[in-house]
Amino acid sequence: MTSVDQLAVFDRNRALAADADDPLAPFRDRYLPQTDDVVAYLDGNSLGRPLASIPAVWAEFAQQQWAGRLIRGWSEGWMELPEIVGDELAAAALGAAPGQTVIADSTTVNFYKSMRAALNLRPGRRRVILDRDNFPTNRYVVESLARDLDLELVWLQAAPCTGITVDDVAAVLDERTAVVTLSHVAYHSGYLADCEAITDIAHQAGALVVWDLCHSVGSSEISLDDWDVDFAVGCTYKFVGAGPGAPALCYVNARHHDEIDQPIWGWLGRKDSFEMEQGYLPAPGVRAMLSGTPPLLGVLAVREGAAVIAEAGIAAIRAKAVALTEMVVSLTDEWLLPQGFSLGSPRQAERRGAHVSINRPDARQVCARLIEAGVLADFRTPSTIRIGLSPLPASFTEVWDAVDTIRALTVR
Amino acid sequence: MTSVDQLAVFDRNRALAADADDPLAPFRDRYLPQTDDVVAYLDGNSLGRPLASIPAVWAEFAQQQWAGRLIRGWSEGWMELPEIVGDELAAAALGAAPGQTVIADSTTVNFYKSMRAALNLRPGRRRVILDRDNFPTNRYVVESLARDLDLELVWLQAAPCTGITVDDVAAVLDERTAVVTLSHVAYHSGYLADCEAITDIAHQAGALVVWDLCHSVGSSEISLDDWDVDFAVGCTYKFVGAGPGAPALCYVNARHHDEIDQPIWGWLGRKDSFEMEQGYLPAPGVRAMLSGTPPLLGVLAVREGAAVIAEAGIAAIRAKAVALTEMVVSLTDEWLLPQGFSLGSPRQAERRGAHVSINRPDARQVCARLIEAGVLADFRTPSTIRIGLSPLPASFTEVWDAVDTIRALTVR
Repeated sequence: MTSVDQLAVFDRNRALAADADDPLAPFRDRYLPQTDDVVAYLDGNSLGRPLASIPAVWAEFAQQQWAGRLIRGWSEGWMELPEIVGDELAAAALGAAPGQTVIADSTTVNFYKSMRAALNLRPGRRRVILDRDNFPTNRYVVESLARDLDLELVWLQAAPCTGITVDDVAAVLDERTAVVTLSHVAYHSGYLADCEAITDIAHQAGALVVWDLCHSVGSSEISLDDWDVDFAVGCTYKFVGAGPGAPALCYVNARHHDEIDQPIWGWLGRKDSFEMEQGYLPAPGVRAMLSGTPPLLGVLAVREGAAVIAEAGIAAIRAKAVALTEMVVSLTDEWLLPQGFSLGSPRQAERRGAHVSINRPDARQVCARLIEAGVLADFRTPSTIRIGLSPLPASFTEVWDAVDTIRALTVR
Repeated sequence: MTSVDQLAVFDRNRALAADADDPLAPFRDRYLPQTDDVVAYLDGNSLGRPLASIPAVWAEFAQQQWAGRLIRGWSEGWMELPEIVGDELAAAALGAAPGQTVIADSTTVNFYKSMRAALNLRPGRRRVILDRDNFPTNRYVVESLARDLDLELVWLQAAPCTGITVDDVAAVLDERTAVVTLSHVAYHSGYLADCEAITDIAHQAGALVVWDLCHSVGSSEISLDDWDVDFAVGCTYKFVGAGPGAPALCYVNARHHDEIDQPIWGWLGRKDSFEMEQGYLPAPGVRAMLSGTPPLLGVLAVREGAAVIAEAGIAAIRAKAVALTEMVVSLTDEWLLPQGFSLGSPRQAERRGAHVSINRPDARQVCARLIEAGVLADFRTPSTIRIGLSPLPASFTEVWDAVDTIRALTVR
């Protein structure tokens, strides 16, 4: 028998061997099956595959909880679910102690509230440092706040295939900076920022940080408490797998809880909601980040995703993410660079999240043909194909076959 | 056979006869059954009962759409669902032409965005007229905006058992007024405001209106277009029955579409979302009110609710709501006033929504005992029991029995 190390990177047996050795392989069966027209799903970083347990959870909720308990459900535990499931996700994937995370609203709305809350904690400062390549919703929200609050925006721009570094931030950080806001994993390049070091230098300058974890939660190791992050938001429909439009996470470090001041004053973020009193007083703790009624179906799906991450262990998930991205980078070098592609992601595994971007001028057309061939990747303007690698549902062989399809479709 | 009109109001046969004559009676079977411990559900104005079709819709979505189409679903119709289902609800229950309604976020978030958008259309004006008895979330949001934008709030206070009238608004309306914001049906008293006349006098003064339809959508006739309403929001988990925390409706009159300027600039409210370009440009039409990714599970449940309302017809639903509330008012007069209750809702049916409030100093305790006895009503501070009457799932006999239980439990 040939040892894996003796196999060339482009030998499919190497992928088969990696699957045979994969301690997370049993988790693939936790997901609803793909249809036969799907050769490989490389878009779990946009929309994760559904856990097989989720339809049953929704049916049970409708039939037993909603129909059975009716309005009583709200006083029998539903009201606390945003915090309870927030804590479950925090323990599984965020490195955060209980009482600092809620599941609510969308990432956009949570980011809006978190940015306002962070800015309110630094009233004498007007500058926000952000990334020109950050996900659009983050840029747009900050631009809206800049207009409303007369902020001064300091845009950073990373070199291709990379992301914002500690040095980039240090170069523009000073006593005028109120907030530094970045994505932990860049949606375009997959660059994994040094969250701890950037948070640390921001604090040294008296600024706060608001991190977007959309592409890292459930795929990368996160230690919000140890890194002393102030605010974090992130979506649950990528690597957490809670379904299209599932509510987002919102983390606020406990040391800010006495001063949470966000602008969407809703009844559920108020102290003693059901007394319906005059005047707004924030609820204690991170609950002050809530506004309207919690979207329970989505919250329950987040619970399923958090449970699977906890069971698999985020360290093992991260290890498989690294192995999958390493394989894709190697195959890209071997097969795709000679065919006119360039690598759009970092080469260093420790600075790479769970997707690999490859660039070619005709990427939009190539991506459309890939989708026709059953390889579901996604196109990002202007010329990138993102290969998303969900550690729990993906197999090495599926990914190997997908890159082989890209190779076959782009022979020159 | 005795004619119904010959039966005394307190004769249970009258309720049985009303059920026998009820053209909407077959709709009761569309809902998942209640458990045996529930004698009567009088809280559909807080959380509507589940339609039996909804669990199957959710299961189909998870298994066929989410698992089957994966990321492709977004380009195969999911992305348009907030507007498509918005239009379906608009046709069924809002009296609004297509293209003016989306299903998104929570009522609180939509109200925040709508108030900001309305204020942005009246830049020279600083006054907001609102109701001291309005639902807490509306009051809190306006108070937050007043702090941020230096608004002047003009609080109206209605007499007990009533709500805000045209004359109340006229007395304080002038050229300083930017926005008048009220609930169509008051959550506490059930007062049904004259939306058309109030909108008209607001417009005469050059002000805009933002209506909260939470307690009227799906239970009262609404004609947003004919009434020339500017903005409206409302929840879908009461009479629409879309489930706990389902996303809310947001209506913007077409004549404002070229100038929609709301503050939560998210990627889904941007023109050409997936081009991910620099700088925010609002999407055309009411889509500019969107921010984050649409919560599809909730949107699909709203579709089920809208379909049943369309099938039953909102005029027939309103007629049954009037008949149910008339019965409760009559039984209150007959049985409960002598036992120390007072009526907390309007006596005129045309000024009453689909719930009846009754007051007694020990209402909190009475309500707790009612719930123990299987009559699920809700308590509202300081001394009100709300009897919510959902026209589609409720029977006259169930409601008669419930009021009879209140009578029996409160004999002095």
